[in-house]
Amino acid sequence: MMARMENLNVELGARSYPIHIGPGQLNEPQRLRPAVEGRRVAVVTNTTVAPLHGDALRRSLADCGISGEPLWIELPDGEQYKTMATVETILTRLLEARLDRGSRIVALGGGVVGDIAGFAAAIYQRGIDFVQVPTTLLAQVDSSVGGKTGVNHPLGKNMIGAFHQPRAVIIDTDTLKTLPERELRAGLAEVIKYGLIRDAEFFTWLEEHIDRLRTLDPEALAFAIRRSCACKAEVVAADEREGGIRALLNLGHTFGHAIEAGMGYGEWLHGEAVGTGMAMAARMSERMGWLDRVSRERAEALIQRAGLALEPPAAVTPDRFRELMAIDKKVASGRLRLVLLRGIGEAVLTDEFDQTALDHTLHEHARVA
Amino acid sequence: MMARMENLNVELGARSYPIHIGPGQLNEPQRLRPAVEGRRVAVVTNTTVAPLHGDALRRSLADCGISGEPLWIELPDGEQYKTMATVETILTRLLEARLDRGSRIVALGGGVVGDIAGFAAAIYQRGIDFVQVPTTLLAQVDSSVGGKTGVNHPLGKNMIGAFHQPRAVIIDTDTLKTLPERELRAGLAEVIKYGLIRDAEFFTWLEEHIDRLRTLDPEALAFAIRRSCACKAEVVAADEREGGIRALLNLGHTFGHAIEAGMGYGEWLHGEAVGTGMAMAARMSERMGWLDRVSRERAEALIQRAGLALEPPAAVTPDRFRELMAIDKKVASGRLRLVLLRGIGEAVLTDEFDQTALDHTLHEHARVA
Repeated sequence: MMARMENLNVELGARSYPIHIGPGQLNEPQRLRPAVEGRRVAVVTNTTVAPLHGDALRRSLADCGISGEPLWIELPDGEQYKTMATVETILTRLLEARLDRGSRIVALGGGVVGDIAGFAAAIYQRGIDFVQVPTTLLAQVDSSVGGKTGVNHPLGKNMIGAFHQPRAVIIDTDTLKTLPERELRAGLAEVIKYGLIRDAEFFTWLEEHIDRLRTLDPEALAFAIRRSCACKAEVVAADEREGGIRALLNLGHTFGHAIEAGMGYGEWLHGEAVGTGMAMAARMSERMGWLDRVSRERAEALIQRAGLALEPPAAVTPDRFRELMAIDKKVASGRLRLVLLRGIGEAVLTDEFDQTALDHTLHEHARVA
Repeated sequence: MMARMENLNVELGARSYPIHIGPGQLNEPQRLRPAVEGRRVAVVTNTTVAPLHGDALRRSLADCGISGEPLWIELPDGEQYKTMATVETILTRLLEARLDRGSRIVALGGGVVGDIAGFAAAIYQRGIDFVQVPTTLLAQVDSSVGGKTGVNHPLGKNMIGAFHQPRAVIIDTDTLKTLPERELRAGLAEVIKYGLIRDAEFFTWLEEHIDRLRTLDPEALAFAIRRSCACKAEVVAADEREGGIRALLNLGHTFGHAIEAGMGYGEWLHGEAVGTGMAMAARMSERMGWLDRVSRERAEALIQRAGLALEPPAAVTPDRFRELMAIDKKVASGRLRLVLLRGIGEAVLTDEFDQTALDHTLHEHARVA
């Protein structure tokens, strides 16, 4: 495969870092070397990903001149393990192996592995550096870039965490060949999101190429991942700590988190919930007169063609939605804030929305169900 | 009491913050107001401090225009509760009360309360702001300034944590009137430390005023606290994340941590262990020919006059010291680094020390015991 390697840089001053994108990246030790050479390394992965890509990573690390053998930490697979208990298990392993402050963590896996491993890195000895090697489309276009790390609490998703930037992100697009189709669709939700919030041209490209993405066309995938990462990197560089425009990346997430929590974490994939959440945000935006009908229909059509549901599960009732949304972390000083659409490629964060439009949006699926 | 109020500023760009020092500060709502007005507030304190100073803080908060009643979280008192389990209890209380990202934590208590509450603030919803109201001398001159937060792990002290700067530090020197004498002595260890590592003039002042500090002379206390905070603030401003000179603040800490861990956390107070650790560092520095005899004797004499032990407990054997020091977080890439003295007011961080001098320093107390 001759698809060319793509490089991006997330510009954060002293904490800037590269994103390497392309096929075969896991087999190229020079991607990892600058981050790990001469260091002790712990690899955090899970029992699903390790058999698929663990050997490639081991071989690359062996060629990087790291100090000693890597400490290998395999977590059970699943969002239900994204807890403080899992983080504490990792911290104990690091201490038992006497990894010092100059050590590195390499996170090999999807968003859950990256969030957990990144948070462990953020709080081990008040912070050590880490490298993201995301192996799902969702993690490649979203969670591996931007420095958000953390775990869930029984009372809410991602309620415990830290901003901790990786030292490098290595995206091997070949890993998508072994990704379950359902997870590919979930990842497409976040890809579509970038088009909706800030890149109308990319949205149009997606309308033309969504079927090729679903059949894993390598060139289409590489383009979509690069464009998505570039969008995210620009937003993060402009607003690392989510004081302003970074919040726009949460389009569909307030509704989506309520779906995930309401169904029990792990029932709906994060991306699936975000896809449905974006459709709800589009419909609410139309009800408020902010989004025209044609744009709402284009948004819904693309979400549907990506294989994602337009309606939330009936089990999450409107009352349950309100309850779960109230605790969502985007509640600022007691007021619920939502990301809504004013057009394709134009999102706004607002706490001045029409309560009736929200009620109707929450109730319409109750009729559908 | 007419002792004047002192103000300092820790210069960290956008994260700069004021330190207010003086008698009666807890009764002056204007110190707290800029940090908490219009916000929801959680107070984290403990069962010893709350009966002494809780009412004063409550009254001040009531005059600050905060949103609703403060959420009151009282921890059991003691270093043994400085654990992730305690942090998780706090996070759960914050979530149950639905405190949002704009909320504030106020830490009222000693270093343990400040470290725990600060770390909870660092990881609640990826970080909320907090205010330090230290009520022990140790916390006032050391842990409340500089942004180090965290908890202990069974395998090591402060092994889990984050750098998270407070929004303000409010030091009411009247709180020292209710401080047990043993804790006052422990705090004096850190005061002496600033003289030893970077301020020979202050060290000489301490030699002249140590007895007045031990009898709580208000003017002497205010001067010593201000000078100590200024030292710490300068070092932190120059090196927030401990890449360089900040490490000098750890004079006596590598030996001290080993004493604390070796005896079981809580047996020796942190400051007591640091006092003894500084004496050990001074003796080792003399053995290496770095520190002259007179300076070593001055260091030991002042530590002793502060009511602190010059020798570590016999129960921590040389072998146990080495084991515990190996896991200390100041081990950089496998090499033990120590802060040693080249003179009064002149400390250096080094991994190039004489192993024999270390051995002798660890063994000499075995003879004494």
